[in-house]
Amino acid sequence: MNFHNCWLKKRSFPYPSTVREAAEAELSNLGVPFKIYINGNGDGFTISKNGNEYQISGGETGALYAAFRLGVLLNNKTDFTQINEAPSYENRIINHWDNFNGNIERGYSGKSLFFDDNEIDYDENRMRHYARMLASVGLNAVAINNVNVSLPAVKLITGEKLPRLAKLAEIFKPYGVRLILSINYASPVMLGELDTADPCDPRVADWWKKRFDIIYSYIPNLLGVLVKADSENQPGPFSYGRDHADGANLFAKALAPHGGYVFWRCFVYNCKQNWRDTKTDRPKFPYDNFMPLDGRFDENVVLQIKNGPYDFQIREPVSPLLGAMKQTTQAVEFQIAQEYTGQQIDLCFLPTLWREVLDTGFKVKHIAAVTNTGNDFNWTGNYLAAANLYGYGRLAWDSSLSPESIAAEWCGLMFEDADARAAVKKMLLDSREIYENYTTPLGMGWFVTPHTHYGPDPLGYEFSLWGTYHRADREAVGIDRSSRGTGYTRQYPPEVAAVYDNIDTCPEELLLFFHRVAYNHVLKNGKTLIQYLYDSHFKGAEGAERLLKAWEALEGRVPGEIYKNVLERLHKQVKNAYEWRDVFNTFFYRLTGESDGLGRLIYK
Amino acid sequence: MNFHNCWLKKRSFPYPSTVREAAEAELSNLGVPFKIYINGNGDGFTISKNGNEYQISGGETGALYAAFRLGVLLNNKTDFTQINEAPSYENRIINHWDNFNGNIERGYSGKSLFFDDNEIDYDENRMRHYARMLASVGLNAVAINNVNVSLPAVKLITGEKLPRLAKLAEIFKPYGVRLILSINYASPVMLGELDTADPCDPRVADWWKKRFDIIYSYIPNLLGVLVKADSENQPGPFSYGRDHADGANLFAKALAPHGGYVFWRCFVYNCKQNWRDTKTDRPKFPYDNFMPLDGRFDENVVLQIKNGPYDFQIREPVSPLLGAMKQTTQAVEFQIAQEYTGQQIDLCFLPTLWREVLDTGFKVKHIAAVTNTGNDFNWTGNYLAAANLYGYGRLAWDSSLSPESIAAEWCGLMFEDADARAAVKKMLLDSREIYENYTTPLGMGWFVTPHTHYGPDPLGYEFSLWGTYHRADREAVGIDRSSRGTGYTRQYPPEVAAVYDNIDTCPEELLLFFHRVAYNHVLKNGKTLIQYLYDSHFKGAEGAERLLKAWEALEGRVPGEIYKNVLERLHKQVKNAYEWRDVFNTFFYRLTGESDGLGRLIYK
Repeated sequence: MNFHNCWLKKRSFPYPSTVREAAEAELSNLGVPFKIYINGNGDGFTISKNGNEYQISGGETGALYAAFRLGVLLNNKTDFTQINEAPSYENRIINHWDNFNGNIERGYSGKSLFFDDNEIDYDENRMRHYARMLASVGLNAVAINNVNVSLPAVKLITGEKLPRLAKLAEIFKPYGVRLILSINYASPVMLGELDTADPCDPRVADWWKKRFDIIYSYIPNLLGVLVKADSENQPGPFSYGRDHADGANLFAKALAPHGGYVFWRCFVYNCKQNWRDTKTDRPKFPYDNFMPLDGRFDENVVLQIKNGPYDFQIREPVSPLLGAMKQTTQAVEFQIAQEYTGQQIDLCFLPTLWREVLDTGFKVKHIAAVTNTGNDFNWTGNYLAAANLYGYGRLAWDSSLSPESIAAEWCGLMFEDADARAAVKKMLLDSREIYENYTTPLGMGWFVTPHTHYGPDPLGYEFSLWGTYHRADREAVGIDRSSRGTGYTRQYPPEVAAVYDNIDTCPEELLLFFHRVAYNHVLKNGKTLIQYLYDSHFKGAEGAERLLKAWEALEGRVPGEIYKNVLERLHKQVKNAYEWRDVFNTFFYRLTGESDGLGRLIYK
Repeated sequence: MNFHNCWLKKRSFPYPSTVREAAEAELSNLGVPFKIYINGNGDGFTISKNGNEYQISGGETGALYAAFRLGVLLNNKTDFTQINEAPSYENRIINHWDNFNGNIERGYSGKSLFFDDNEIDYDENRMRHYARMLASVGLNAVAINNVNVSLPAVKLITGEKLPRLAKLAEIFKPYGVRLILSINYASPVMLGELDTADPCDPRVADWWKKRFDIIYSYIPNLLGVLVKADSENQPGPFSYGRDHADGANLFAKALAPHGGYVFWRCFVYNCKQNWRDTKTDRPKFPYDNFMPLDGRFDENVVLQIKNGPYDFQIREPVSPLLGAMKQTTQAVEFQIAQEYTGQQIDLCFLPTLWREVLDTGFKVKHIAAVTNTGNDFNWTGNYLAAANLYGYGRLAWDSSLSPESIAAEWCGLMFEDADARAAVKKMLLDSREIYENYTTPLGMGWFVTPHTHYGPDPLGYEFSLWGTYHRADREAVGIDRSSRGTGYTRQYPPEVAAVYDNIDTCPEELLLFFHRVAYNHVLKNGKTLIQYLYDSHFKGAEGAERLLKAWEALEGRVPGEIYKNVLERLHKQVKNAYEWRDVFNTFFYRLTGESDGLGRLIYK
């Protein structure tokens, strides 16, 4: 199977069999004199320049990451004498939502790299390259199967499937990448071995202990398991009258002897909500479910928390649960796959969004993200979407990086032409605001087509079970989540809550997330809310057109295959932006009767 | 395979092998003295009572229909001395939308009776009973496969599949039921035998001529073929710059030597419409496409026209094309399957609707309907939905029958208990108005969930490609289809057009189909439009509850299995009615800001 090298330089050496070999090979590949000094086992490293020679010191994986870092520095002709780096997060993880049948849930770049037709089926050569790609940006763990684990995939933890997984773990190992398995909470029941999955039943504990003894006998360096329990119809401890601490600790205890982690997702909410009920508020669930359990989780439990309280929208506040549980280990979860953010058709550079999330200042030990990779030739469907995977890895390594520096670095690796580098960098950096403008500005959210999550549908989720409402009527739009409304703001520390609680101090980009606002409310730029909404959509659609024009100017300056691939998607993006602009504006025009202040066409 | 006898009395004789045998067996089964006098071949009959003896005269099929009719008369203890009957339509057809893989498009009663896993697969015994059921209400033709003919089903007309079809035709024959095959317009291309399906290319004409020679060598009594061309992405003559007369005549000429018909569907419209375009109006398409072709169709072409210009909504005006083409043979097409009318969950007795359609007075030669039958034990999922199949057959036989007489007849056959007969009759007769009230009153239509067509979604089709819009804004709702609007009314004869054109003379139940109406417009009952809409939904939901209560009162008076089956569905119907009531009312409340005049709860 053939594939694109993505941002990596072509390899001029055989794939290595140890991390040390990998580090040496990558350094040799750079064509500069170097020396390696291995000390300890850490991921951190120092690169010193001594005359022409580069001296690398660190643990084995540290040396490997140093090699890739040096490659970027040389590529970008960065001047330095010494660089010290250590990762911001201990485990830097990607989650695949790959199904056992080969389809990818929310996948926009082909089929699974790991599964086909209910079998484990991977291309070994491509797996080695994938591990190299991940290591090149400092990523060190991969959950290969979907968090929704249905029946055939439940068998991944059985002797029937483990040998092929063990082989994959071996392939990943020289690049410092460790496997995680997503497991079904009710596996002992689903495999027909027990009639209960009650976390407090000793038979269940015993079953998992033995199961992990077997799993680790095949994959000794397994990082751990990922569990989506009591979430969107998945089974969990609630079925047995237990809580999530009981559930997570069940796995933690069975994993502890092997040094494994249980990554326990906090995406737990009522997905059978009645839209008539205005008291229940979906964003409140993660905090309400987990905060009271602080202190009850075993040490090797990691609560994996989505960056926002909803579900990977283009704009949400940071989850109040992140950093709030002082006695619990946490991971923040991002989504590289552009489920709600353009589906690798529309350009949307996500490090811009992630930067804002990280800037809120919470501290967590691990970081995870749903990946956007599949078996497409170029890995990510849209060539430019690879910048998001790259950017995630870079931020996972160094959470202080700016979107500008990440975009510049990636463009430097991807394109030779200086104009192309500059132009694509600008496209990436503009893209998130453009997408937000023509889809759902001001934190409104959930204007999207149900199920597919691409394109506008103003009432698609408005009367649904999913708890996602904007409740737009002829006077106002948005949910009052202040202390006078659903009380969601109270989940934040008092000083933050106070800012969100007040319509005048609430950051304007989150206005409709936190407040119900009349259309004639005047915003900071002096315009009414309704005019702001219209403006945003006209501006967003113009922005999409500008992206297309900027790309068209690069014909001949970027490789033809990349040009064609991105051009096709930008044409679709412009069409999508027009649809969003017109449907959104028409919806609000019909509700409000307000014409555009600038006399632009809004369809009736 | 076991199955319910439906409205038929149990058979005490072996299945017959000729129509004459069938007639004699059915008469013997009644346990009364009779004599048969066969004359000619017609479907009509006379039944005379001479003392205790019943004398039947007519063609062979006439005698068969007389036998079933006499059974009903005896069952209902109807007094008579002589009855003369002849069918209102020459061919009385049902269309199955059964896919070759065994699924049924818009099927709500199990899987296909004819296909499974891309093979022809039927239970011969059940097929014989099915033919008997159809004959018992006078139906005489069945298209067994979906009008959307995709690749595996294209092969139905090849030697590989024809022997099993021929066997089926033989099974149906003693009950006077003839086969129709749905075919793909582009079959010669799809089967890889020609590179064109241009109807004016002699190679194509020759291909079809030979194909029908083969088909008729297997099935000499095939009634003909059914074609959905240039409709909802199916291929057709438009692809070759030809019109529908060219297309239909291609088949007609190849069928003529065998006495076969081509049933050519007129469900042709632009299904890639832009919602911004307010000039294009989907209901105008059938008339605009076909009316200019009047006089160009061969004699054995039958244009099959849906009863309304849209698509089987709970309320539409009659299609202006029906009866309008003076030189063209037509069939009216109904839908027994409750796609938009409750999906065999909600009770909706459709003869009420069909009665109104037939009362508009158009004359056509044939009648067809999409059936609601599948391989469920009771044939129609909901036991009470069988009344719709029964009613369709009865109206196809005698287009003057009243819904009351049909309901009484069917209840008389289905239930022993007199109270049950009366109660179910009332439920059936009330059901259409109830369903209309809580879903889409006043001919508004298209408030339904896209794709599934069950449950409310106020804007689900509002910005779609399908040309189905209500364009509700804060002031008004509905499409102006008058001569001042899209001009759709001009497709009717002037005296009819004048009635529809005027908001004061337009039948109120079609008000929002024909006119755009302000919410404060006062209706005939003195209420504003908005209040009428609210009232209708409250009333409809109450009606659904009343149906449930009426049924609950029948526990012990109807067979337990039927009681349970219908009860379960009525509970779902009530839930569905609440959802329609609340979503619909909330939608309009948010748009208009008008509270309910009677102070009932409308959710915000």
